[in-house]
Amino acid sequence: MAFQSRLVDLFRWRRDVRGFKPDSVAPELLDRLLDLADLAPSVGLSQPWRFVTVDDAVRRAAVRASFTACNQAALEARDADADADAGLYARLKLAGLDEAPVHLAVFAEAEPAQGRGLGRATMPETVAYSAVMAVHTLWLAARAEGLGLGWVSILDPLAVTAALDVPQSWVFIGYFCLGWPSLNSHTPELERHGWERRRSASARIHR
Amino acid sequence: MAFQSRLVDLFRWRRDVRGFKPDSVAPELLDRLLDLADLAPSVGLSQPWRFVTVDDAVRRAAVRASFTACNQAALEARDADADADAGLYARLKLAGLDEAPVHLAVFAEAEPAQGRGLGRATMPETVAYSAVMAVHTLWLAARAEGLGLGWVSILDPLAVTAALDVPQSWVFIGYFCLGWPSLNSHTPELERHGWERRRSASARIHR
Repeated sequence: MAFQSRLVDLFRWRRDVRGFKPDSVAPELLDRLLDLADLAPSVGLSQPWRFVTVDDAVRRAAVRASFTACNQAALEARDADADADAGLYARLKLAGLDEAPVHLAVFAEAEPAQGRGLGRATMPETVAYSAVMAVHTLWLAARAEGLGLGWVSILDPLAVTAALDVPQSWVFIGYFCLGWPSLNSHTPELERHGWERRRSASARIHR
Repeated sequence: MAFQSRLVDLFRWRRDVRGFKPDSVAPELLDRLLDLADLAPSVGLSQPWRFVTVDDAVRRAAVRASFTACNQAALEARDADADADAGLYARLKLAGLDEAPVHLAVFAEAEPAQGRGLGRATMPETVAYSAVMAVHTLWLAARAEGLGLGWVSILDPLAVTAALDVPQSWVFIGYFCLGWPSLNSHTPELERHGWERRRSASARIHR
């Protein structure tokens, strides 16, 4: 049972990481992790995920600007509602964009030729879902190496897509910060900072 | 490195399983797996996934009927195009609905109160994506116990939602067969049967 129990540990301390040390990630390690992500399940074996590493400073700045704008808008929407949580929201660190050595954008090819359309006729969203499972595979594989990953979703998908100059047929899935975590914890960041807490699973299981 | 290499093995032989032995799955094991799935990442720590185990014969039959209708429509669409692959498509086994001891439907609560909206204002699809990561967590955890899981997406989401009588606010993510696999293989089913093959990852990584 050693492997199963270590797998459970991995699920438990996976975390969304938003603080990173400045240390770089070896290119060979990143390559290996992306190769593992490529083993994820995909509808019709279409492997529709597309990974884009973002190193260019101008492109990173455009993504950072989109995050800043969207996060400010989210904060103002709370203010407008006289939301008591606006102050707490403003203090949360929601992305590690400034410190993470590796920036990765993930897209899905909306209508991949590979897979010949199998399995997605009635549920085209399974293409995006496949890319999400590739992200999750990367997340677990990275964490197993001691790396941390943070998912940045407070972004305008159109702005990011434009900044990265990718094909029109690609659907933006998410933007990811990868690097060596400055903190390891079993407790989710949003729980540590009093925003939200895990709830018992039983409420989500219906028989 | 023993854990990392076993994790890689798990990614490699995870498979979408469509053939099951008749043996049942102990309820305690299923409970434990669903608890693990609940550790998945979620936008704003919203834990928006909803698991519904489907035991009722009438409900199972309704899902089976939807699969049959959608699969027939997919086959006819290929025939209409004089698709040379229609014969091969017709011979593929695309779901283990008749044998799998456990049937599980997964939904996402479209606008979960938990998480207080954090992270999903510009990308509401992250709610569904969170549920997909819970599915993938379940998949890996099940596989680590020797169980197999198969994702059935050849379904009408509205028909399944109606058959299972779930709240209107729930979005259908997928339907899953779980049980003890009749075959274990490193090679994807669709590759074994000549439908599609894995391609090199390099084409999907852009620097």
